[in-house]
Amino acid sequence: MPPHSYTVEVIVENKALARDPEGETIHHNLILKGGYTQVTNVRAGKLLRMTVNADTPDNARDLVKKLCDDLRIYNPAAHTCTVRTVG
Amino acid sequence: MPPHSYTVEVIVENKALARDPEGETIHHNLILKGGYTQVTNVRAGKLLRMTVNADTPDNARDLVKKLCDDLRIYNPAAHTCTVRTVG
Repeated sequence: MPPHSYTVEVIVENKALARDPEGETIHHNLILKGGYTQVTNVRAGKLLRMTVNADTPDNARDLVKKLCDDLRIYNPAAHTCTVRTVG
Repeated sequence: MPPHSYTVEVIVENKALARDPEGETIHHNLILKGGYTQVTNVRAGKLLRMTVNADTPDNARDLVKKLCDDLRIYNPAAHTCTVRTVG
């Protein structure tokens, strides 16, 4: 049986306790200056949406987790990397 | 009653039919060269995670949709902008 095709999302963000100058700039200089004071925080990150051939959604997610670590898609000292299968 | 606090995710991507040089580079020069041929496509995008005070999740999402259009967080000619409330 041929494997199925799954969509896996990878989100790379600065760690929660680290500063995020990009998010801070968008928050202060764009959103708050624009009058949207209901927005109390903004964090910026990178999204990679991958299409993966695998037998199961879990296998697709595990493969992407492995390649993110293996290929150093993110810096474990500075970033968190969240991997999730979509749909 | 004070409003609740919701997390809203904004994803800005190149339109589906437009090329995505960043995703292509990650796919060809990193992932395929690394031997992960099960990955058949990669699209890169930007994630903004906003914390918003609102009465309901729908109101939080609608406010963020409005500010993304209003403040030109994305370029409607080149990008799609997806807004979703989390949790």
